[in-house]
Order: sequence, then C-alpha cells, then structure tokens
Amino acid sequence: MKTNILEKEQVTPISADALLSHWQGHRRLTRRVIEAFPEDKLFVYSVGGMRPFAALAVEMIQMASPGIVGLATGEWKKFEDAISFKTKKELLAAWDETTEKINTFWTQIAPQRFTEVDVAFGQYENVNHDTLFYFIDNEIHHRGQGYVYLRSLGIEPPAFWDRG
Amino acid sequence: MKTNILEKEQVTPISADALLSHWQGHRRLTRRVIEAFPEDKLFVYSVGGMRPFAALAVEMIQMASPGIVGLATGEWKKFEDAISFKTKKELLAAWDETTEKINTFWTQIAPQRFTEVDVAFGQYENVNHDTLFYFIDNEIHHRGQGYVYLRSLGIEPPAFWDRG
Repeated sequence: MKTNILEKEQVTPISADALLSHWQGHRRLTRRVIEAFPEDKLFVYSVGGMRPFAALAVEMIQMASPGIVGLATGEWKKFEDAISFKTKKELLAAWDETTEKINTFWTQIAPQRFTEVDVAFGQYENVNHDTLFYFIDNEIHHRGQGYVYLRSLGIEPPAFWDRG
Repeated sequence: MKTNILEKEQVTPISADALLSHWQGHRRLTRRVIEAFPEDKLFVYSVGGMRPFAALAVEMIQMASPGIVGLATGEWKKFEDAISFKTKKELLAAWDETTEKINTFWTQIAPQRFTEVDVAFGQYENVNHDTLFYFIDNEIHHRGQGYVYLRSLGIEPPAFWDRG
C-alpha cells in the first residue's frame, strides 16, 4: 500500500493544462450567469441580505486578476482597492480582461510553483494549488448563490454542466 | 515555450492525496451546513422554487457514493433509486458512511485512472479527473445555494474558508 501511495505522488491526477481548462470552463459559465441578470438587478438584487451578484463577480475578479500574477511570479499584491462598475458591459469587459490575463500568466507558472507554499496576498499561507482551488471554489460557491437570485427572479439560470 | 508546456505535463500540479484532502475538506464543510439547518427547514425550506437542502445533499451522496467506486474500479452503477431520509440524523449517518467509503476506495484508484476516459454512470463520457471535479463542484454549487437558504432564514452559515 505504501508503494501504491508513493507511485501516486509521482503521477499527476490532472495536468496543468487541464487545470487551466477546468478554471476557464467555470469562468465561461460565470460569465453567462452575469449576462443572465437583468441590468438593474445585477447591481442591486439579492436574497437574505447578501451582496448583489455584481459585487460577488467583482470579488472573483479581485482574487483572480492579481492572483494569477501571484501564482506565476510569487508577487502577491494585496487586493486592489474596491473596484466598482456601473454597467454590465463594464463588468463583462473586466471579466474578459481577466480571462486573457489568466491565459497569459498561466504559461509562466513554473511546474514546481503549484506545490510551493506562498503567503497569498501577504495574508493567506497555503500550498499554491490550494490557493488556486480557493479562487475556483469561491467562484463556484458565489455563482451558486447567483443561481438562487436568478431563480427567485423567475429567470432560468444557464446549465451548470455546460462549460463550453 | 513548447518545452515548458511539455515539462508541465510531467509534473503534478496536485497529488492524488492532496486531491482527496481537498474533496474531504469540502465534504466536512457541507456536513456543517447540513447541521446548521433546523430539522424541519432542512427537508422543506427553499428559495425560488428550488429543492430543499436535504434533497441537494442526497444528490451529493448519490453522486459520490457510487462515483468513488466508479473511479476506482471502472464499474459505474447507475444512481441508486432515489433515497430519502426523514431526519437530519439519518442524512448525516449516510453522509459519514460516504466519507468512509470515499477514503476506502480512494486508495484503490490506480494512478493512471485519473486521466482515463470513462462513461460515468453509463451516461457521462469524460476524463475521470473531470468527473471527479464534477462531483466536488456540484457539491460546492449546491452548498452555496444552501448558504442563501440559511441567510434567508436568518442563520449565519459556517465559514466558507474553514475546511477542518
């Protein structure tokens, strides 16, 4: 059994390329959720006193955009000052800019970086792959909340399984 | 650049052991979300006409429990007939049983299985690591919805970042 475990650690359950596809697939779905909100509801509507979906999407950008630079370079700039957008168009433009930035910096992540420990944003000490999963999972978590907002508005959300 | 990409594919961004910890960390958090629901609300309360959280938790179990066997052995039994629990205690017991089952079968997953393509449950053709991520992400997605249910009930959900 011990041998089995050792073997496993030498084999990759998922390649870096597949991990990027996984992340960007989720980001394509989140983009569709942003699009599904009526312009006015995107910035003000929520359930249970939570933040509107635009604020959740901004949080995702504020993690991913400086985060991909941190993963690639080890330089973790603190979250930028709260950015705020007034229109869906502005928010989607920032989303798309982040998509390109992730693709660009991803190719600069040295293989060993994923298993190194960094203090992300000068605050969160973690193995880098766990920091990356935190970005992805936080997005899935908040997007799931957006699904409830949409349903409670009587709007059918995009299919969860569709990442194309 | 080409060389860089090739190198990356030979290095594991995350080990199988770390991936199991990642999954079980999420499952510990989901367990706390189940616990956070008052007994009666767990089975009936929802927002926007969606399913109550107990039904979402049952879906997670119905994926993970036969799913871990599929990942380990290649035998994908169809989802069991809808299981239903009448109490939080029964649901948590099934949750904990699934936790143990995942730990047991995980050690039987041969390293190469993660990147093989299976038709999961005789229906979903996918690379096994993507099927695994589907289980995890579907849980995060629905748990995020449970956070909205809790908030709308005036209940503070467990901290998202705490997976211990």
